[in-house]
Amino acid sequence: MSEISKIARKGSGSACRSLFGGYVAWEMGDKEDGLDSKAVEVAPVDHWPLMKAAILVVSDDKKDTPLTTGMQSTVATSDLFQYRIKEVVPKRFEDMKKAIQDRDFEVFGDLTMKDSNSFHAVCLDSVPPIFYLNDTSKKIIKLIHKLNEQEGKIVAAYTFDAGPNAVVYYEEQNENKVLGLIHKYFSKVPGWEKVTEKKSQFIDSNIEFDTDAYKGVSRIILTGIGPGPQSTDQSLVNDKGLPK
Amino acid sequence: MSEISKIARKGSGSACRSLFGGYVAWEMGDKEDGLDSKAVEVAPVDHWPLMKAAILVVSDDKKDTPLTTGMQSTVATSDLFQYRIKEVVPKRFEDMKKAIQDRDFEVFGDLTMKDSNSFHAVCLDSVPPIFYLNDTSKKIIKLIHKLNEQEGKIVAAYTFDAGPNAVVYYEEQNENKVLGLIHKYFSKVPGWEKVTEKKSQFIDSNIEFDTDAYKGVSRIILTGIGPGPQSTDQSLVNDKGLPK
Repeated sequence: MSEISKIARKGSGSACRSLFGGYVAWEMGDKEDGLDSKAVEVAPVDHWPLMKAAILVVSDDKKDTPLTTGMQSTVATSDLFQYRIKEVVPKRFEDMKKAIQDRDFEVFGDLTMKDSNSFHAVCLDSVPPIFYLNDTSKKIIKLIHKLNEQEGKIVAAYTFDAGPNAVVYYEEQNENKVLGLIHKYFSKVPGWEKVTEKKSQFIDSNIEFDTDAYKGVSRIILTGIGPGPQSTDQSLVNDKGLPK
Repeated sequence: MSEISKIARKGSGSACRSLFGGYVAWEMGDKEDGLDSKAVEVAPVDHWPLMKAAILVVSDDKKDTPLTTGMQSTVATSDLFQYRIKEVVPKRFEDMKKAIQDRDFEVFGDLTMKDSNSFHAVCLDSVPPIFYLNDTSKKIIKLIHKLNEQEGKIVAAYTFDAGPNAVVYYEEQNENKVLGLIHKYFSKVPGWEKVTEKKSQFIDSNIEFDTDAYKGVSRIILTGIGPGPQSTDQSLVNDKGLPK
């Protein structure tokens, strides 16, 4: 499977990860041409099934920098990127694999947030600078830090890929706390239908937050760690080739 | 004067620069305790009098991280900061002094923009991340890059300190071009009174930009490089100690 992932990587870098389910690492490899860069399974989905995720889909203007173009510019122009890739990422990569193996959410969450911010920092350090986070993304970041501060430990962790959408990880035992807080301020956003029967158990939060922030979010997706690709007869497009 | 600046620095870091006029460098010094960190004059104001600046005061929520507290957190928590301070800044500092001595606006502008973005990148890399730039700041950054791209060279350069306000530098010979563009999209903002008689010479731009961006800016200040502190009998406060 890791061998097939080398082929998938040529189409879209992150596609190489999608051949596996569970917890997947995308290894950089050693070769200059990247041909040995591949995905490996760190742990299967049932190793840590209690990991959940809430995705806050942030409304934004059309993304003006596609990831591949953006990363090429960052590699070529950011001074800080060189340090990130040589010194910061390799150590964090090993720490992250261990955190997943140990099911240590505090370490996992700390590394997840730090690495998201470090990635966006080197994007900003590019010429011209690349911005994926917007003001709504920043508000969500602050909200999660407030929650963790109140709890005295990391119970939720955000990450952002090449866009303004937040993925908030948490463990099932903290679901009522984490979703309670998110629901309090984003209840007007669609996507809560899946947990209608659970909502009465949500824990109310006294954390103060911008009550208009929900206007910057178009949808919530409540999900978890999934299995690998499944064979299916279903299609996302109709017989005219248009989205169903 | 540089000796006095060591005392000023203890009150507020950047205050040490304000004892001079013209182009001033704030040297880091070598000592661990910072006691030899001081300001020096790179060039007097009449060395490069054609340097102008337009400050776009960006409306924002109350700043939630004062600079000193923010920098202490960045020093303590950002991995990228260590690299910035050891490798990126010292070289850029020498290049910048030379650019000023040579009156080389292209190099000056390139370094100014890169260093602003690098500073905000390490703020974002802090735990918790510090955000000074908001969506309006980002729009101004993109606008200046569009202008430089159209001109095929750097005719304007932005910088942001610990807040969302943009300082846009340009040379007087490009004033009609730079202010023409800014005026086109920010004419509704107060601060243009000073250049009323010049406005007919502003060059109209065909750069497309968000026509609502002016709503995020409260004032424009048109200024240039100033002389050092002046002795005065005027006071900013009245005889009750309140602002006049």
